Amino acid sequence: MKVTIVGLGLIGGSYAKDLRKAGLATHLFGVDNNIDHVARALDLGLVDKVFDLKHACALADLVIVTVPVNAIQKILSDVLDVIQDFAVVIDAGSTKTRICEVVKFHKNRSRFVAAHPIAGTENSGPSAALDGLFKNKVNIICEVEKSSKEAHQIAKGVFDKLGMRITYMDPNEHDKHVAYVSHLSHVSSFLLSQTVLDIEQNEKNIFNLAGSGFASTVRLAKSSPHMWAPIFEQNSHFLKQALEEYIAHLQKFHQHLVRHETTEMNAILQQANEIRRVLDGIELKNEPSKDIAGLEKVIT
Amino acid sequence: MKVTIVGLGLIGGSYAKDLRKAGLATHLFGVDNNIDHVARALDLGLVDKVFDLKHACALADLVIVTVPVNAIQKILSDVLDVIQDFAVVIDAGSTKTRICEVVKFHKNRSRFVAAHPIAGTENSGPSAALDGLFKNKVNIICEVEKSSKEAHQIAKGVFDKLGMRITYMDPNEHDKHVAYVSHLSHVSSFLLSQTVLDIEQNEKNIFNLAGSGFASTVRLAKSSPHMWAPIFEQNSHFLKQALEEYIAHLQKFHQHLVRHETTEMNAILQQANEIRRVLDGIELKNEPSKDIAGLEKVIT
Repeated sequence: MKVTIVGLGLIGGSYAKDLRKAGLATHLFGVDNNIDHVARALDLGLVDKVFDLKHACALADLVIVTVPVNAIQKILSDVLDVIQDFAVVIDAGSTKTRICEVVKFHKNRSRFVAAHPIAGTENSGPSAALDGLFKNKVNIICEVEKSSKEAHQIAKGVFDKLGMRITYMDPNEHDKHVAYVSHLSHVSSFLLSQTVLDIEQNEKNIFNLAGSGFASTVRLAKSSPHMWAPIFEQNSHFLKQALEEYIAHLQKFHQHLVRHETTEMNAILQQANEIRRVLDGIELKNEPSKDIAGLEKVIT
Repeated sequence: MKVTIVGLGLIGGSYAKDLRKAGLATHLFGVDNNIDHVARALDLGLVDKVFDLKHACALADLVIVTVPVNAIQKILSDVLDVIQDFAVVIDAGSTKTRICEVVKFHKNRSRFVAAHPIAGTENSGPSAALDGLFKNKVNIICEVEKSSKEAHQIAKGVFDKLGMRITYMDPNEHDKHVAYVSHLSHVSSFLLSQTVLDIEQNEKNIFNLAGSGFASTVRLAKSSPHMWAPIFEQNSHFLKQALEEYIAHLQKFHQHLVRHETTEMNAILQQANEIRRVLDGIELKNEPSKDIAGLEKVIT
């Protein structure tokens, strides 16, 4: 299968590695407007050749679009314009409503499979690509009814081969849920970082006093602004609500703190502790040896 | 050296393991009012024998107090009342002002070394104790001028042997800085967990959509409320300020989000990204092989 990767970063590069390793990609073509990333991707052997967008997409059996969500929104129609009849286009955007909206009436909409693999790290660029990044990770397919059965089967075949667990959602429902479990975490982390950097003018003190807990909480603040600012912007409707809820919870806690209401603070912490049960579930889920039957929704 | 550990949890248990391994403790006595923890600590061989507080402290050359900060405040004078003349008492509390305050005029104040090792995990209890937990971690000693030179040397000997890097601070300065780099991170994480659990009534969705980023950001929300509610309460003065700053930063971001001010959002994320440099410093610092000279403040 000839595969074109549009966007040679962490996600695109990891797709390239896994597709080659799985024997699915016979040819790997790359597209990226960052010349450093192009050079690095070629150097690392992530892709064999690099072309401009239209040429690379016209050659492919499978196009995987892994650029930031604002760029996906901008180029997706162009990609669908130039692909061959039998080709399939998959994206990896962290928002789905606007991306699905932009190709809603495209003549080749049925060749597109809107997907969001819940995978990544705080690093970016071709050097951040990882082998096996997608193994045991959830991949959310949206508006599957708008993809042809054949396109869906091809995409599903790729996701299965890479070890992903597929789930299906409406784009709106997707964007609402990821606002809480992904986008809000990123905002919380970015802003914690900014707050602490702002206040601790004497950076040496952060350096000396920060433990692994701080490092864990601000890890996501290392993430690429070029990737995340557009996600926040595209999902502003749901993220706004999530952020308001978070601020309201923080304000309530602040009130208890000021009033020295230890019992109430304790009750909040106890409630928050429930996340251990949820996270233990996630860890179990991510164990390759565990039975993952039942996690995949049945589609008709 | 006969060592008494008051509080057989993650920190106390880890001290016990390392002190035995380093050959510093010939006898290890334990104190804990949780009978399950006592049984587990004996079972794990963390301590040899368990006594009541006064008896255990009267026997010791070194007493390490690793109970929650409200309990330290409550029992520290009792401990200093019963120790032998040559004994040294060390605490491990995450707040220092109130703990130092409570023993300010105690006749045995000079036998006490107020310390805060920046080490731990989100787990608690004797089973959470880890070998080598303190290696390459910072330990902050406060009010060193109120400890006798001999008591300080004994404590320092223990900390050095366990591989800790000692730094010295005023209790007020300590509490202010840890409010930002530790206590605020915990609040941010606990409240993120509570917010998401509150909203995602359908827990299955968290379970399915949460990735490693979410897990990292809410990791601290698994921490023990019995340990953290008293820390927040004792450090409410500085934590209140830190939390207000955090909320103000979140509100500003929320405003940019509502107004679709992508440039401004991008600038905030760029600024937050600076934490990578700081955290890389921490990681370097925690590498055992690196030169750590210059990190330790000189005391006179």
